[in-house]
Amino acid sequence: MSQSLFAALQALVGARHVQSSEEAAPYLTDKQGRYVGQVIAAVHPASTEEVAAVVRACVATDTPVVVQGGNTGLMGGATPDASGRAVLLLLDRMNRVRAVDTDNDTLTVEAGCILQTVQEVARAAGRLFPLSLGAEGSCTLGGNLGTNAGGTAVLRYGNTRELTLGLEVVTAQGEIWNGLRGLRKDNTGYDLRDLFIGSEGTLGIITAATLKLFPLPKAQATALLAFDSLEQAVALLSHARAGFGASLTAFELLSAGCLALLREQFPDGPRPFSNAHQPWFALLELSDNHSESHAREVFEQVLGEAFEQHLLADALIAENLVQSQAFWRLRENMSDAQKRAGRNIKHDISVPISQVAAFVAHTDALLQQHFPGVRHYTFGHLGDGNLHYNVAHPLGSTVDAHMAHYTALSQLVHDSAHAHGGSISAEHGIGQRKVNVLGRYKSAVELDLMRRIKQALDPRNLLNPGKVLEDTRP
Amino acid sequence: MSQSLFAALQALVGARHVQSSEEAAPYLTDKQGRYVGQVIAAVHPASTEEVAAVVRACVATDTPVVVQGGNTGLMGGATPDASGRAVLLLLDRMNRVRAVDTDNDTLTVEAGCILQTVQEVARAAGRLFPLSLGAEGSCTLGGNLGTNAGGTAVLRYGNTRELTLGLEVVTAQGEIWNGLRGLRKDNTGYDLRDLFIGSEGTLGIITAATLKLFPLPKAQATALLAFDSLEQAVALLSHARAGFGASLTAFELLSAGCLALLREQFPDGPRPFSNAHQPWFALLELSDNHSESHAREVFEQVLGEAFEQHLLADALIAENLVQSQAFWRLRENMSDAQKRAGRNIKHDISVPISQVAAFVAHTDALLQQHFPGVRHYTFGHLGDGNLHYNVAHPLGSTVDAHMAHYTALSQLVHDSAHAHGGSISAEHGIGQRKVNVLGRYKSAVELDLMRRIKQALDPRNLLNPGKVLEDTRP
Repeated sequence: MSQSLFAALQALVGARHVQSSEEAAPYLTDKQGRYVGQVIAAVHPASTEEVAAVVRACVATDTPVVVQGGNTGLMGGATPDASGRAVLLLLDRMNRVRAVDTDNDTLTVEAGCILQTVQEVARAAGRLFPLSLGAEGSCTLGGNLGTNAGGTAVLRYGNTRELTLGLEVVTAQGEIWNGLRGLRKDNTGYDLRDLFIGSEGTLGIITAATLKLFPLPKAQATALLAFDSLEQAVALLSHARAGFGASLTAFELLSAGCLALLREQFPDGPRPFSNAHQPWFALLELSDNHSESHAREVFEQVLGEAFEQHLLADALIAENLVQSQAFWRLRENMSDAQKRAGRNIKHDISVPISQVAAFVAHTDALLQQHFPGVRHYTFGHLGDGNLHYNVAHPLGSTVDAHMAHYTALSQLVHDSAHAHGGSISAEHGIGQRKVNVLGRYKSAVELDLMRRIKQALDPRNLLNPGKVLEDTRP
Repeated sequence: MSQSLFAALQALVGARHVQSSEEAAPYLTDKQGRYVGQVIAAVHPASTEEVAAVVRACVATDTPVVVQGGNTGLMGGATPDASGRAVLLLLDRMNRVRAVDTDNDTLTVEAGCILQTVQEVARAAGRLFPLSLGAEGSCTLGGNLGTNAGGTAVLRYGNTRELTLGLEVVTAQGEIWNGLRGLRKDNTGYDLRDLFIGSEGTLGIITAATLKLFPLPKAQATALLAFDSLEQAVALLSHARAGFGASLTAFELLSAGCLALLREQFPDGPRPFSNAHQPWFALLELSDNHSESHAREVFEQVLGEAFEQHLLADALIAENLVQSQAFWRLRENMSDAQKRAGRNIKHDISVPISQVAAFVAHTDALLQQHFPGVRHYTFGHLGDGNLHYNVAHPLGSTVDAHMAHYTALSQLVHDSAHAHGGSISAEHGIGQRKVNVLGRYKSAVELDLMRRIKQALDPRNLLNPGKVLEDTRP
């Protein structure tokens, strides 16, 4: 049967756009090499109609369909299982820009577009598409939508969800829903758009989207701030929100341990505050619609007030673009710095901003009690209450010995985030990696609602089975 | 059976909190007197647990449950049908403020809170809750959530959906989902929150919400602008978005016909531009985080550029709060002015902003062709592409003769909005009033997805049956 499906798929999209499991090997291992899958075929359709036809062919043969974007996810959400029963759907040929509407400030693009391309198309039209994250050079808009991607601009512009006005989706029945509306207000029925966004390919296949555009800022100002405590950083954030309003476009936290790690791993990199004794630092960015001088004036006024009110210990204000880029490089290098230092146990948690300091104090103490000597690399998007709370091996111990504690250590961290009113996955999703622990943190009522929706839209459980919700089929 | 249910409800919430259909008469007619219902009982529970118990009692007896907030809706969405089979659920006793968290900029309140109370609680905490609409003195947060209410601040802050982080909901099975999360980022499963918001009480009963708060602006600047054409108004809006960024908090359109109507119905009211010959006007509001002088400086710079670029014909800048309030009164009086002039045929449509001018030109011409002499009162939230496109009787004809054309005329307007990529209900919802026409504008695929979701969450069709989707039970 799998041979006849392979031939049927070739007939639908053209023989050279269907690959065998061997040919598709690069798509069948996730970014971190944690999961390896097998498939009947990997298919590269060129249009929404072809996607629908592929899904119908899979439905007819009871074949699971897994959709994948740039394969940059961290939860294994786009990797098929090892059974070899599934078809992998790749939308790389669906990368057209369908419409740019500057009066409506919208952009309609296909799901296979690389995020950076979407940013560039917006910029060429004199507009900003603000979604920005580490993988932007290779992740696709479809993946961003499927996981409701976050990134560094959420504080001002929201997650992918808040940046999306309309969707085009192929349903689990292989039908096409055209919901590509460029409307700011539309109250005519249930919010299907937001149900598909973040559903990780388990409820439908997103093939295109109508996105919001924003004015390009005329100037930006950046500072690196030092704090005596995390409580002080939270108070400064509150002050900055009031003073800058929507001009506050980034507030990225770095612990002293992170700065030390950066100096260690990038000896030729920037070394701000290298003799400082403060425990916490933050990168603050203001975006201004007027001018460089206006940005600077507002910036110095609000930071001046903050000094007077003892809301920060020290500040370095970038004098030019080069200095600003150096500050941002610190934040951007955190991922590579950790890689160079060896594996650690990563968490992508969020808590209410008012709970951040208590969460960190409580969890740090708990881990030192259970795993003495572990080292904390805590950083992230304080403006969203989203911390990358990463834990490295104790000095004098080995990475492998530390990684053996993965499950127990992570459970402590997740339990603590949950106890502080937080989430165990702020921006990375559930995929297959966290699917088993979801039941620990979601109520039975919520899981039941989720299962009802899955059953309603994909009753045969063919769309990305085993992701987000456990695959309970025999 | 209805008598034993009445007694059971009395036992659950206390006898004095259960009313007969006669006692509940004020709740059983909608605001506009278009729909009149009958019920077994009207119930006023005091807590989420009581709401859940009431729903379970109704489920056990196969009794429909209709929830109502301030009874200010325009679509009959909160009025039970005339069969007398339903129970009406009123949340007026559930009006507690559960939490104010200024570090997290969130507020957790129960669904029965009056919107104006929510605004006042936020202001007392030094914050802004920006949802603002005509009925704010009597509508409830639960109704705002159920209909995803819009209003005058959507341009900057979004609809009720965008202002909500978490919900508490009683399901159709009488279970409680606690989704009261105060998180900016949480990607752990399907977006249940946005599914319940805007579902008009047909998928679950929203009992509380965690809402976003914002900094209070330090200063505001207001101007009334005159335009030679609607195209020019759209171009100025684009310029204002680029120049003011997120400081642009209102852009409300009024036609020359609207200003004339206001002068006629409010002879003692403000009379700006009374000798102007321009066809279109707009009220523009800037909100500033810094100071009065800063607001004024930015305002004059951006409007000065607009004059140089011929993006407006004339401008009146409010010199003080009294003048600003006079400008706003024009907009706010539009509803009463129309009432005084007699009934007209109202539409709450939205189109992409780039299509507004084409929509108005096309629809005006079409109506003059089919209904010669009708008069247009076109106004609304241009910044959201949302027009209140209202049509009054021709001079020399009667209101009754005009209203007899309601169905045919509305269909022309809705067809035109749809043909311009728009919506037939931007902010008022579907209720029972538009339920029959939804099939004309939604695809079979979209209606099927909506029905699948309704069936999944409320398989016995007990929650507000016949609203949003047609009641297909025998």
